[in-house]
Amino acid sequence: MQSKLFRITLNSSQPELLLRFYSVLGFHFSQKQVDKGSLAWLGQLGEMALEVYGIKETFSGRSPNVQLSFQVAGIESIIEKVRDLKLQIMMEPLQSSIGTIAIVMDPDGRSIELIQK
Amino acid sequence: MQSKLFRITLNSSQPELLLRFYSVLGFHFSQKQVDKGSLAWLGQLGEMALEVYGIKETFSGRSPNVQLSFQVAGIESIIEKVRDLKLQIMMEPLQSSIGTIAIVMDPDGRSIELIQK
Repeated sequence: MQSKLFRITLNSSQPELLLRFYSVLGFHFSQKQVDKGSLAWLGQLGEMALEVYGIKETFSGRSPNVQLSFQVAGIESIIEKVRDLKLQIMMEPLQSSIGTIAIVMDPDGRSIELIQK
Repeated sequence: MQSKLFRITLNSSQPELLLRFYSVLGFHFSQKQVDKGSLAWLGQLGEMALEVYGIKETFSGRSPNVQLSFQVAGIESIIEKVRDLKLQIMMEPLQSSIGTIAIVMDPDGRSIELIQK
């Protein structure tokens, strides 16, 4: 199995505006259960999911505003190669109810989530 | 036909590093013909294309570092709705050899390309 980009997450201090915009493009959103105090919506368009996270304005400059999520095979081998490239590994592979998850930074600092089911 | 996200474009001042990273995820890149003086690579992973544009460091803060490209139907109607949302339209729909193209900004300033074939 090769990797597959299946979700894009956008962090925004004006999530309602984003929902209206991406609905115009055809995404259908529903609110998602997240940590207390946070608001999130999950939209779907064909096979692509778009997640919108509401964040406080004061944090918006520091949060990566886009995260790309890939379903992968061989997550340990990918992490080793990422380590060889001297890139930042934000979260080492961790077992969870939905599979093994890791988060790395691409060379420009974009957040990349890897999930092996 | 509903919209479909088919390409993500990353602008980077260190494209070679990006190519190495995204190759680890399984993208296969080939260099692409662009304007004199610019370097660009197009990668493919299943149905998703990833384009990496080399940009000068000095411009990297001003360029949007991610562009999402959607194939759409009813581009004129979408543009009207985007206008109703008071969002910025960077390029009005324009006939080209690959179809009708428009570029708009999402509410946070991410660049969104719309293509109707």
